[in-house]
Formats: sequence, C-alpha cells, structure tokens
Amino acid sequence: MAVCYTPSTVDDVFPVAGIRLGAVAAQIKNWQRNDVLMIECAPGTTAAAVFTQNRFCAAPVLVDREHLAWQHQHNKSLRAVVINAGNANAGTGALGLEHARRTCRETAVLLKCAPEEVMVCSTGVIMGAFPIDKLLAGLPEAFRRCHEASGTNAAAWLAAAQAIMTTDTVHKAASARVTIDGVPITVTGIAKGAGMIHPNMATMLGFIATDMPIAAAVWQPLLREVADGSFNAVTVDGDTSTNDTLIGMATGQAKISPLTTLNDPRLSVFKKALLDVALHLAQAIVRDGEGATKFITIRVEGGRNVNECREVALKVAHSPLVKTAFFASDPNLGRIVCAIGNAAPPELDVSRVRLWLDDVAVIVDGGPAPSYTEEAGQRVMNQPEITVRIDLGMKTDGASTTVWTCDLSHDYVSINADYRS
Amino acid sequence: MAVCYTPSTVDDVFPVAGIRLGAVAAQIKNWQRNDVLMIECAPGTTAAAVFTQNRFCAAPVLVDREHLAWQHQHNKSLRAVVINAGNANAGTGALGLEHARRTCRETAVLLKCAPEEVMVCSTGVIMGAFPIDKLLAGLPEAFRRCHEASGTNAAAWLAAAQAIMTTDTVHKAASARVTIDGVPITVTGIAKGAGMIHPNMATMLGFIATDMPIAAAVWQPLLREVADGSFNAVTVDGDTSTNDTLIGMATGQAKISPLTTLNDPRLSVFKKALLDVALHLAQAIVRDGEGATKFITIRVEGGRNVNECREVALKVAHSPLVKTAFFASDPNLGRIVCAIGNAAPPELDVSRVRLWLDDVAVIVDGGPAPSYTEEAGQRVMNQPEITVRIDLGMKTDGASTTVWTCDLSHDYVSINADYRS
Repeated sequence: MAVCYTPSTVDDVFPVAGIRLGAVAAQIKNWQRNDVLMIECAPGTTAAAVFTQNRFCAAPVLVDREHLAWQHQHNKSLRAVVINAGNANAGTGALGLEHARRTCRETAVLLKCAPEEVMVCSTGVIMGAFPIDKLLAGLPEAFRRCHEASGTNAAAWLAAAQAIMTTDTVHKAASARVTIDGVPITVTGIAKGAGMIHPNMATMLGFIATDMPIAAAVWQPLLREVADGSFNAVTVDGDTSTNDTLIGMATGQAKISPLTTLNDPRLSVFKKALLDVALHLAQAIVRDGEGATKFITIRVEGGRNVNECREVALKVAHSPLVKTAFFASDPNLGRIVCAIGNAAPPELDVSRVRLWLDDVAVIVDGGPAPSYTEEAGQRVMNQPEITVRIDLGMKTDGASTTVWTCDLSHDYVSINADYRS
Repeated sequence: MAVCYTPSTVDDVFPVAGIRLGAVAAQIKNWQRNDVLMIECAPGTTAAAVFTQNRFCAAPVLVDREHLAWQHQHNKSLRAVVINAGNANAGTGALGLEHARRTCRETAVLLKCAPEEVMVCSTGVIMGAFPIDKLLAGLPEAFRRCHEASGTNAAAWLAAAQAIMTTDTVHKAASARVTIDGVPITVTGIAKGAGMIHPNMATMLGFIATDMPIAAAVWQPLLREVADGSFNAVTVDGDTSTNDTLIGMATGQAKISPLTTLNDPRLSVFKKALLDVALHLAQAIVRDGEGATKFITIRVEGGRNVNECREVALKVAHSPLVKTAFFASDPNLGRIVCAIGNAAPPELDVSRVRLWLDDVAVIVDGGPAPSYTEEAGQRVMNQPEITVRIDLGMKTDGASTTVWTCDLSHDYVSINADYRS
C-alpha cells in the first residue's frame, strides 16, 4: 500500500475518479491566494460526515447536517462541497445561516442539482461579517476550473489542499491505493488545521474521497469509526472549533460491487486504507500544531474501557505543565504522574500504575522505577518524537487507546496572542 | 471588618490566640531561606481540612486524611502542622509514607501529644527523594521558635507565609476581625501557590486559623463550603496538584460559646469573615499565577444548576486560546463563544446566550450585539482586570457561579519550561 503524507510532488497523490476540483482567489480576506474551493462529485456519490460537537456550531455545520440527512433519507447524491478559508461564518446568527444556504443554492444552479446535494464548509475568524458576495462571485470560476482537463489531476488535489489552509504552514494531503478483488481502489484526502486549536482560524476540516462504491448505511458508521481513531485522537490544546468537519465522498466509480453491509469481508482492507489516510492527515495537523516542536504519542493501557483510557490520555495531552516540560526537553515526569492522578477514576490503585517514556521505565508499582535515571529520561526527552506509555493496571488485558499531541512552546503563545494584529 | 491582602506590614495581620509559629531553614533544597514551618495549636484546637482529589495524592495527604479522621472520631485536638517547601514527598511510594508518619511522630514527641494530633504538608518537586533527615533535624529549632515571645506575633505570621513559598513571587496572608456577641473574633490565614498549576512545585497550600470555638461537625462542612467558593473557584491552568491542602484550625480561645450546629444564627457573620480571608488568599494565588499579567473574573449565570455554570466557567478559564487573547489584549471574543459551546450541555439554546465584557454587550440572542464595536471591546481588553459575564439563558433566575483566573503569557511557558534548569 502506498501512503504518502503531505506529498511534495504531484506524483505522490492518486486522483479519485469522479472528483473534480476547482480553487479560486475570491478575496475572502485581503490576501493574494486561492481561498475558495469547489469539490464536484459525480452523480451517485455517497456522502458521510462527522461534525463538531460544539454547541455554538457554525452556520455551515447546521446546513450540512440537514443536507446530509436529506441525502440519506432520499437516497440522493452529494454533488459538491464548497469550502472557503478566511471567515468561519460562525456566531453570525440567522444571516450567516442564510448565507450558507444561499451558497448551496447558487452552487446547485451551476451543477443543475438540488441545493440539498451541496455541502459547505467555512474556516476563519469567528463573528466577522461573512463576505457572501465575494464567495458567490467566485463560484462560476471555481466550477469552470473543475471542468478543465486539469481539474481532476494530482496537481488539482495539491492546489485544493493549499486553498483551504489558514494558519497551516504546510498543506496536508494523503493518498492510499489498495487492491480489492483485483480492482485498484483509491483513497485520497486533504485536510487543514494547525491543531483543532484556533477556533477563530484553525478549524479542522478534512475531505476524504474514494472511488469505492459504499452504501450510506456502511459509509457513515465507517467514517465515524475512522474519525474516532484519527481526527478525534489528535489534540493540540483541547479546544474544539465551531466548524470542525470531516466529509467522506464515495464516488462509486470503481468497477466493483458496492459495500452494502458492515459484515462485508472486503471492509477490513478498505478500512485499513481509509484509516491510514485519515491518521496521516490527522497527525499532519498535530505536526503542524502552532509552535509545535515535538510530536508526542500517548498510549494508555490497562483500563476497564476505552473511555477511561481516553480520559487519562487526553488529560496528559492537554496538561500545560506536561506540554511545557516536553518543550523544554525536561524529564520532569512528576507532571505526567499528576495528570494521570487528575484524570483517573477513583478506583485507580496507584500502586499498580506503570509509566514508560519510550523504552525507559519511569514508574513501576506506583513509585519511581529502580532502574530509572535522570540521564535515561533526558535522552528520550531530547528526541523530536516521544512515546508516553501508561499502564493503569485496572484490568489485565484491559482496554487501550492512543492519542497524539505536541508540546506547548513560546511560539504557541506568540501565534495565538498576536494572530489578529 | 478589616481584611488585608498580602499585608506589607505586620500591622495588617491579626495574630490568632492559641497559634504559635516557628519557621526554620532546614535546607530541604540547596537554598538560603526558611523552608520548614511548624504551626503549633493550643490544646482544644479543632481541625477541618480539604484535600486534593488527585488520585496520585502525596504521602502527607494520605497521612493527614487518617489523622483528621482519627481526631474527629476520638474528639481530639489538632496540636501541630508541619510544612516543608522544596520537596513534595509525592510519587515516593511506601518510603514517602513512612517519612510523613515519622515527621508526625517526632513532632508529637516534642509536643508531648499523639502522632495523630499532628498533620504534615509538603510542596516541591514530585518524585524526588524526600530529605527526611534534614526535615527532622529542623524540628527542635522550629518548636523552640514557636515558644519564643515572638512566636505568636504578627511578624511570625508573615515569616510563616514566606517559609512556605515556592515559585510564589509574593507571600500571601489575609486577616479579618469581626465582633460576634460583643466578642472580637479573628480569622487569619496564609497560603502559597502560584496558581494550582505547578504540580512539581506550586501546590496550593492554605492554613486558616481562628479563635472562634467551633465543633468539628460544623467546622468541616463550613470549611468545605468556603473552599468551594474560594480555593476551588480559582484556576490558572486546570491542573490539580498531588498535594493541594487547606487546613482550618479553630483554637477556641475566644471567650464565646462554641458554634455547634449549622443553624447557629451567628454562623453567617463568621462565615462571611472566613470566606473573605479564603477568597483573598485564593485570589492572591491567581494574581501571582506564573507569568500572569491580567486578573480575569468569569461569571456564568442562567444555568439550570451550579455545576452547569461551573463547567462553562472553567472551560472559558482553561482555554489556552481565551487566555492568550487576554494576554494580547485582543478582543478576539469568538474564542469565548467557542469555549462556551464546548462546555455547555446539549440543551443549550445558543439563540438565548448573552455575553458581556465588563459593561460591553458582546453577544445577544446568540449573535453579535448590534451595539458592539471593536473599540469598546478593545477598551475593556486593555484593562488589567476584566470581568467576563455569560448568561446561558437556560433558566430565568437560574443558578450562577464565579471563577477567577489569569492570562497565559510567554512567561508562563518560560517559567514552566525552564523551572528545573
């Protein structure tokens, strides 16, 4: 399987049959770059999506939830996704909602489809007036570019990944190809976000397309499961944006019988490719976390259930004290112990907790490992990539989970303090 | 009522009859300063205490819980508290527990009391070997100083506040005097902590003494209620230390009949004085938060219950994005909206949410307030003290709560990244 992360050349991206891409510079902000992307999907494309749980979700999220439900209810296609960078259309009330609906209507006119077959995504400043006229003015040109010969090639995917960037310092794309029943199947995705951290700018958006034919009843739970193991398992600072959205597009263009049940034996191979793409996109977001200098993997084992493990992993991942220690390459490991103690359930028997930093045992039997030395801890802390492994000791062969995060640096403060100035 | 915060002169502190204080330099760390404090309480002193909920709580917390239960069960006194700065005796396993017990035993020998009548508190680096010999060597001199003439004066209280400091940049003390039934009653406290944020160093410790006679059955729930409205309502970064402890000491030396029931009509006046002292100590911790440049009050109203309000208030208080915006004096208020959306229950009707920054309406009816201007927002953000008021609109005359926090600055990262170096 070929999987490429943030491809540096167009050779690394496999286009997906049935997907056309058109990016334009609509001047959503006062900048010189593409900032509106149209993804046109062939008729017959099945959509799935996972949205932010933030109660103050943005207008596009409200509209997309409606449109996805409508498509599934009426067995209709997703025909286009329109994404803009520069303005989140969040906290914009009834007017913002009308702007999102109007974008769908005008796109539907271009594609000669129902407005409900269109979805929209926005990312940028919250509560700013949404520049609807600029966005609408860009749609015809975006549509035209979709239908140029170059609208389906690998370069169009990279241009698409660039058009949706905000504070991202690198564009994010990943691609995988697997063979199922002798048929090559492609999964390609793009994403933006510098860590789900910038609610006013760095919303996480992800778009993953495949030519595999998949029924909605399979596609939706599959995408959610994959999102839980990827986009929902990375974190920079624990803030969930008002706009976070992952959309899956199954064009069904591959000459293979569709996945119609979750019991299909072909599902596991496809899911592996999908998860690889999603995970690499998600990890690329963490690696591009604002000010990040280190990539941290936190694995928690020995819990009674996954949620229990996840609570602990996220507490460690979010602790500013743990994160600044990683930034400083300081083996100040009591901070990890403290974070475990804050998140673990009351039933935790601390005398059974074990902690490793890569291969270095730090805590055994709830106390310092006899073999631990400051030098060994320092050696691991100096690395750019570090794995923290925690065994809660609550259950033999218990549940486990993994999350990925980054450190907290001076640059994080600078980027977030100075962003709007 | 005279309440003084971080008194600059001894005139601002009212000593408490029945309390003796002795601070010594025991070299717990390699520094030149007092780092062990003995607080000796007169026979008949009733203790109450509130401890960290961290599951990896330190050895002194485990011992103190036992001793407090023993005192209450056997109707015995608290006779002494021994506090050391420089080492937390946390993550130290069975040996650390024995060191805490031994400190109690040797103190009990000096005071000729039961070891269970002694409590211990430690603050400093987690997982470092505990220098028990240095601590024990300092106890006789600390005891001797308690019995000097100066061991009970206001200067002894200030010296005590200084002896328990770690990363604190100012010592913290507060004092109140009220008259109940014509009898002057004193409440005086000291605290340390730069924001409950430094699990390896800036544990929150608080010690509040009063000459009011109070039965344990009243003192314990009263102290807990006051802690919830003060120490548990301030936060710098959401990390709860392994050692956080608040101990209340009621010496009963005032010539007044004791508070023996929660229905006592005199309770409200006393509670007001106690809360004032606790709140001023707690707020002093936030003001001294590592790198803090702003003091933020977050008030949440209109919830269905206090917990609901508290969840929202703490999410806003802990959001690194909100905190960096305050540091930058940037009216980037979408970040507050986003934090509300992350913490509020699914039943939140965003169209009813209102938000103010001091007197400036920011959000009404779930959207931007028509009267809001960037200039008005900027004016408030420039202030060193700012109040964020959020009406969830979930219930008319609903529950409310207030928490206090500070901003997230470059210095926070520096202090926490560089601390051990």
